[in-house]
Amino acid sequence: MRSTVLHAPGDVRVEDRADPVITAPTDAIIRLSATCVCGSDLWPYRGADPLEHPTPMGHEYVGIVEDIGSSVRTIKPGQFVIGSFFASDNTCPVCLSGYQSSCVHRENVGANGAQSQYLRVPLADGTLIATPEVPTDDLLPSLLAASDVLGTGWFGAVAAAAGPGKTVVVVGDGAVGLLGILAAKHLGAERIIAMSRHESRQKLALQFGATDIVTSRGDDGVANIKDLTDGLGAHSVIEAVGTQESMMQAIKSTRPGGHVGYVGVSHDVALSGLELFFSHVHLHGGPAPVRRFLPELIDLIWNRTINPGQVFDLTLPLEQAADGYRAMDERIAIKVLLRP
Amino acid sequence: MRSTVLHAPGDVRVEDRADPVITAPTDAIIRLSATCVCGSDLWPYRGADPLEHPTPMGHEYVGIVEDIGSSVRTIKPGQFVIGSFFASDNTCPVCLSGYQSSCVHRENVGANGAQSQYLRVPLADGTLIATPEVPTDDLLPSLLAASDVLGTGWFGAVAAAAGPGKTVVVVGDGAVGLLGILAAKHLGAERIIAMSRHESRQKLALQFGATDIVTSRGDDGVANIKDLTDGLGAHSVIEAVGTQESMMQAIKSTRPGGHVGYVGVSHDVALSGLELFFSHVHLHGGPAPVRRFLPELIDLIWNRTINPGQVFDLTLPLEQAADGYRAMDERIAIKVLLRP
Repeated sequence: MRSTVLHAPGDVRVEDRADPVITAPTDAIIRLSATCVCGSDLWPYRGADPLEHPTPMGHEYVGIVEDIGSSVRTIKPGQFVIGSFFASDNTCPVCLSGYQSSCVHRENVGANGAQSQYLRVPLADGTLIATPEVPTDDLLPSLLAASDVLGTGWFGAVAAAAGPGKTVVVVGDGAVGLLGILAAKHLGAERIIAMSRHESRQKLALQFGATDIVTSRGDDGVANIKDLTDGLGAHSVIEAVGTQESMMQAIKSTRPGGHVGYVGVSHDVALSGLELFFSHVHLHGGPAPVRRFLPELIDLIWNRTINPGQVFDLTLPLEQAADGYRAMDERIAIKVLLRP
Repeated sequence: MRSTVLHAPGDVRVEDRADPVITAPTDAIIRLSATCVCGSDLWPYRGADPLEHPTPMGHEYVGIVEDIGSSVRTIKPGQFVIGSFFASDNTCPVCLSGYQSSCVHRENVGANGAQSQYLRVPLADGTLIATPEVPTDDLLPSLLAASDVLGTGWFGAVAAAAGPGKTVVVVGDGAVGLLGILAAKHLGAERIIAMSRHESRQKLALQFGATDIVTSRGDDGVANIKDLTDGLGAHSVIEAVGTQESMMQAIKSTRPGGHVGYVGVSHDVALSGLELFFSHVHLHGGPAPVRRFLPELIDLIWNRTINPGQVFDLTLPLEQAADGYRAMDERIAIKVLLRP
């Protein structure tokens, strides 16, 4: 099959790899209908994450089940399915408490490289959800978004306790931040302040439900948020970047007793215990348990209540994956959909 | 009046200071019935917190109202009152959300030095609560405990989401940790694991509701907690120390999706963003909003449902405050009550 492999920082190649096969009775093989490039793929692309050998890329996927292992019960060949970046059994105590991305048997689906024509998904019964029928093409982007960025933004909003009467700030205007806005809106937030300095992203932020745009960052950004919230800070802040600056911007923008939901993968972040202590915030986040939200998110997409697929502003054939990485790296595109 | 002053690390003196007077119309002056030495007083006593000049000590207090400012409405001279270490207006949005220790008008009562005969308490209406009548002497220790350590342990348990069906771990066997056990028990926790290696503290832990004692610390302690919880970690962990080791012990002892309530004042703690991210815990804590819990705690003490005063295992006259510091520093006493 054709598959996207990162050979070195900036060196993305689409090349031939062996087709995946069933290796455990709980596996499924999927023929991908769509996949995409994630903001987190840019960390190794930019050399910020170490790369020890050529690495198959991608962890977002939707597609048609081709084959299943002998013990798979709920998923059948021919179904259109969506799953998340961590495979989960969905039966262990951690899964049952809603933290499937820390399942005691979790496996990293991304290690198999989802920016490909085919993908092996472990623990198929606990990981994949089938849609009512094979969707029409126009639903593909939104269903693909549910595989990661929508579920991640949703978790950020839930972790930040976004809801009625709340003022929510969103730090980060990538696809996850933008979909955090959509989630906060759906959860009933009263006011949603997007921190963004890019016109196209601001536009989408407003479309998804942002009520205010703040273009400043760091301590200036915090001061602006305080100005907008009677000097108190926001009730809820979604952090969707993962740097020291963005984390501190999120914590300092939150009022005492408020909630920070952080879903940007932390890079070189060290939080001062004393600063955190006196901030009085609730801090929760981590790898989003997308599986927890998938049934509801698929329903909302299927009924056309939400349209998260709008974050894809560039669609390319899989063969042009390298162009997709470049467009996201240079922030020309918000998110790039790849058609295998 | 006589008052306790720290002149240098290890140098505690009881000496004459001017009697406090009303300086704002919202003030009250209290004649102290009892005060005490706090674990957090040991930081400057040990030289771990900088000391720029001789500093009046103490922030825990109960006593009889002597005088009130012209705008005080709910507190009257002659009443027996209890307050917390931060004065709060109890009317601002932060107070109304239950975070009185981050009140927008908060003042540090401890700066006035509560290990004294008299104390000025700012924002009396929002800070002090009067008991139904002047209590009998046997209730004094428990009511004094409510001023800080009980309220702080309670906040730790609430922040850790202790409750029915939960396994709760308590890191730290000082008065706050021990009262965190009492709080977790009262909140209905199913299993309470105290981490303690001191016999007298273990005994009190069991009396307050601990079901298990773990004597190991650090990574060994974490491994023991994992062994006791099917490899998952506890649902709820109360951190009541404030060091790097104790914070990491708390975070690593918590299962994904679980809650860490941290109430030990952080000293030289830096949390790795990536470690926190993948721990998947909820983290909440800070200076306990004791005022939130005071009405309920006073009721529970008044009705003799709880007896938190048991943490005081040494009572001394105020004049012997230096002996009290020494006893706590050397861990001969859990907590020292001073009678002015």
